[in-house]
Amino acid sequence: MIKQRVADLQNLLKEKNLSALIIPTNDFHMSEYVGEYFKARKHFSGFTGSAGVMVVTQTEANLWTDGRYFIQAERELADTGVILRKMGEPGVPTVKEYVVENVPQGGKLAFDGRVIPVAEGKVYEEELAKKGATLHTTEDLPGMVWENRPAMSAEKAFVLTMEYAGKSTTDKLADIRAKMAEASADIHVIAALEDIAWLYNIRGGDVARTPVVLSFAVVTMDKAYIFANKEIFDENVMAHFEQSGVEVKPYEEIYSYVAEIAEDKTVLLDPSKTNYAVVKAIKAKVVQAQNPSLLMKAVKNPTELENSKMAHIKDCVAVTKFMYWLKKNAGKIPMTEVSAQEYVSYLRSIQPGYLDLSFDPICGYKENAAMMHYSAHPETTKEVTNEGMLLLDSGGHYNDGSTDITRTFVLGEISEEIKAHFTAVVRGVLALQNAKFLKGCIGQNLDILAREPLWEVGLDYKCGTGHGVGHILGVHEGPNGFRWQNVPGKNEGGVFVEGMITTIEPGVYIEGSHGIRIENEVICREGIKNEYGQFMYFEPVTFAPIDLDGINPDMMDKKEIKWLNEYHAQVFEKLSPYLTEEENEWLKEYTRAI
Amino acid sequence: MIKQRVADLQNLLKEKNLSALIIPTNDFHMSEYVGEYFKARKHFSGFTGSAGVMVVTQTEANLWTDGRYFIQAERELADTGVILRKMGEPGVPTVKEYVVENVPQGGKLAFDGRVIPVAEGKVYEEELAKKGATLHTTEDLPGMVWENRPAMSAEKAFVLTMEYAGKSTTDKLADIRAKMAEASADIHVIAALEDIAWLYNIRGGDVARTPVVLSFAVVTMDKAYIFANKEIFDENVMAHFEQSGVEVKPYEEIYSYVAEIAEDKTVLLDPSKTNYAVVKAIKAKVVQAQNPSLLMKAVKNPTELENSKMAHIKDCVAVTKFMYWLKKNAGKIPMTEVSAQEYVSYLRSIQPGYLDLSFDPICGYKENAAMMHYSAHPETTKEVTNEGMLLLDSGGHYNDGSTDITRTFVLGEISEEIKAHFTAVVRGVLALQNAKFLKGCIGQNLDILAREPLWEVGLDYKCGTGHGVGHILGVHEGPNGFRWQNVPGKNEGGVFVEGMITTIEPGVYIEGSHGIRIENEVICREGIKNEYGQFMYFEPVTFAPIDLDGINPDMMDKKEIKWLNEYHAQVFEKLSPYLTEEENEWLKEYTRAI
Repeated sequence: MIKQRVADLQNLLKEKNLSALIIPTNDFHMSEYVGEYFKARKHFSGFTGSAGVMVVTQTEANLWTDGRYFIQAERELADTGVILRKMGEPGVPTVKEYVVENVPQGGKLAFDGRVIPVAEGKVYEEELAKKGATLHTTEDLPGMVWENRPAMSAEKAFVLTMEYAGKSTTDKLADIRAKMAEASADIHVIAALEDIAWLYNIRGGDVARTPVVLSFAVVTMDKAYIFANKEIFDENVMAHFEQSGVEVKPYEEIYSYVAEIAEDKTVLLDPSKTNYAVVKAIKAKVVQAQNPSLLMKAVKNPTELENSKMAHIKDCVAVTKFMYWLKKNAGKIPMTEVSAQEYVSYLRSIQPGYLDLSFDPICGYKENAAMMHYSAHPETTKEVTNEGMLLLDSGGHYNDGSTDITRTFVLGEISEEIKAHFTAVVRGVLALQNAKFLKGCIGQNLDILAREPLWEVGLDYKCGTGHGVGHILGVHEGPNGFRWQNVPGKNEGGVFVEGMITTIEPGVYIEGSHGIRIENEVICREGIKNEYGQFMYFEPVTFAPIDLDGINPDMMDKKEIKWLNEYHAQVFEKLSPYLTEEENEWLKEYTRAI
Repeated sequence: MIKQRVADLQNLLKEKNLSALIIPTNDFHMSEYVGEYFKARKHFSGFTGSAGVMVVTQTEANLWTDGRYFIQAERELADTGVILRKMGEPGVPTVKEYVVENVPQGGKLAFDGRVIPVAEGKVYEEELAKKGATLHTTEDLPGMVWENRPAMSAEKAFVLTMEYAGKSTTDKLADIRAKMAEASADIHVIAALEDIAWLYNIRGGDVARTPVVLSFAVVTMDKAYIFANKEIFDENVMAHFEQSGVEVKPYEEIYSYVAEIAEDKTVLLDPSKTNYAVVKAIKAKVVQAQNPSLLMKAVKNPTELENSKMAHIKDCVAVTKFMYWLKKNAGKIPMTEVSAQEYVSYLRSIQPGYLDLSFDPICGYKENAAMMHYSAHPETTKEVTNEGMLLLDSGGHYNDGSTDITRTFVLGEISEEIKAHFTAVVRGVLALQNAKFLKGCIGQNLDILAREPLWEVGLDYKCGTGHGVGHILGVHEGPNGFRWQNVPGKNEGGVFVEGMITTIEPGVYIEGSHGIRIENEVICREGIKNEYGQFMYFEPVTFAPIDLDGINPDMMDKKEIKWLNEYHAQVFEKLSPYLTEEENEWLKEYTRAI
């Protein structure tokens, strides 16, 4: 099946005299997750992981993916003829190196200009020009031979009314226009779906786990447009647009619209989010910068913050009910990773205002939890009993906010070493959650507070400590985040300011043995201001028990124990009104002062 | 007197038809401290502080200095006619703004091209070109009207033999040449005095508190030169140079030497350290980069490290003897800030291998200690009695290393609030001194460990947490340092690697009340290496009691108390062999476990 699909692509390449074709894992907006219509890389390679790039030449088909997916990709690519290229392994060329090597002088590299960000497209353009090769970017080649391709999503959109959005589109447009003026821009093209949904106070269902609307936005000094499938906007949405001064244009028209912008105008756009085809169509001057909406939407307004707190209570009620059920029943009734995550998803789904999961849960038992991005499948799921630990990283979208929480549950006897690891992770969460710091701090300043308890004993986790969380939007967003070393292109170097919501999620991952992660979300708040500056602190919004069965209090300082006890007292106070008497009796025990 | 000196300068400006003259606080090498010959800014303005820039026009004389010196400058400039420009105050133009404003079209700005770094000179060149003005940089105008100018220093140089240097000049030259090859440079011009002293394994006395030799170095792929006053090199030094392949040329010849470098050659130099005149003379291609020797000399070799530990023991013996004497005698015998710092300097001077103080001591009693850079003077010195606290920041150069240590001594009853401040500072020192971290960390990652105990309670210190320390060289050196926000041009963003020596010196400074600073030096060491990377830790080299009379143990966690007790046990073990029985009896008490 895959072999035939690859052959179809290769015939097309020969027919059109093209040297190579890049098929990335992108939609037209460089979204973190993409709709089914856009899963060409999965369709043609057979690899189902969330990250990967396929490159097909007339004689070869290759798939690049990263370390998280090597094992899965090997299995899925077996017998397909597609060559697995393990990113970052010694001797493995990068996609760019491979492409530059395999497109000969006078050759042509093909990709759909709509699924490659302009920043990347320009690199290919320049590298190939050096060897006298060119690009072919105006056709969707995979689409030409993709039988039974899923339709492009056209889910109904809905308005986030003021009681949920907290700030009107009119006001947000004014803020955007002020930033455009600062950048001397006449026109701002926004391709990032989360930014458009935030700006226009709408949500939709076009991307799994991210309630956005497939669209482009264009803002001028007196007009605002949304380029989208009109069918998905009902009367309510249209009335909201009219009231906010937003005009609807067909989705595909963005390309001709930007082509007609007068050459003496200046267009502001984000090169990491805007596709190559859009930018190539523009004849006007282009100013490349981060979308101003990135920072604006990261700084939640008071309505969003208050609502978000409520969403977290509901979400934590679901997780805590799950914890009670899990710890009571593990080893007594049959359960698996899959059935466990289905049960917690069910408990979320019955919470008021529930919309969707905010991402596919990670539910790993015992050694499976050591895989940071583990995904349980019905065929391979582990049975869960009263031994070891279960790690659950999950979250939901509600009408009042989005959540992301991880707890690791102790289901039986665990070794002193594992307890030491568990305790170190908890200490890291508490230290960062209780940090006081001066305004101006970025993730690089603060990250060590969570990591030091692990570094103390020669452990580490090979990822950031936390990320910004969108408000009924993507569960990962910038510019706030905790990371000790900057990752270029990560949009994460932002200064922490009042209203940002960020996760704190250190962990220990011992291959073949166990994995521990504890994750809380915190709001950044302004504290006292004095001669030294504006002090900041974090207010937690995630309130669920941290399993005391995993903690060795002898390894904690009195300050840390105080923090934990204070946190658990709040957990009980906030959740108990929503739990049964039986659950509360248990919760009292699991939020006791130690 | 100052008025006449300024008038002399202004007459010269008129005579030569120059619009303005910049007199910075630099020697020809952009040294942190400069010799008497170079103190033109002090001579012509009357301001004696360590930092400041004078700008004289035909009608006006101005002096810029920073917040540390406002009070002193106001006093010293009174009745001189020199206008004080307070750097960073609202509405005060910067030196650059003032100069650009006051040099008219067709005008000429003068400065001695040898006392302005090329990076800065170029800025003036470009800014003035925009308004059709030019530079006049080939004359030393202040020198022309400076009566009784001190002679340029010509102190004897000496060789740092292998038992002290640990690495031969031949080997160091090989390292430098490897870096030159990496940068495709044929010739490397080194202007930084510390770097030259390090490279050629010599020391001297041309700059107060910094045992360097006034010189330039030029390294080619097969030759090495030192441009210096030959008179200061005795037989030993000349033999060492001959053995190391270093040729001596006259100091002033650097300008003609670089002018004769063939145009097709490439010269590597550091634009923050090399003066404008040198670079303007070069016709060859110039590659601007940090001197490779900056990092090389920061990474102390095993000989330097072992010697440095000995130097610290001697230095700590002096400080501890002082502490014993001070705490015993304060309020009983007459003493002042000045007499106290003279006594500790005396105690240093009788240590074996003593060369010089490494900087002028800061000895501040009570509220004087709140001034971070306080300098006690005989006319203004405070009497020291058995009340409050005395802060002493001091250090020495020895034949085996250099030191920088601060202790704050409790001389009488102090309030609970002051004890809380003292305890927080101690906690900060201990937290950073005991940090474990992965290789790759820079100051920005680690700084918060020292600062968090202060930030917790809404306090801060408005400076970095620590700086690199030279080996019988400048007491401040890069690229290592602890600072939570990068300061451009500070040469401080370096990754911590094995062998670097850095100070840890948090503090609390309450204006009009008290100041507390505790400063230890630590060596960066490699710890375990595993799947997560190379772990690093710090080994303290400063061992002197931290005054237990200032500490409230109830405000410390058990981990912190353990760290303090372990540290104090080492202090006793390392110092007691060098103290009297009486001193040891007291030391036992002041290094007791709490």
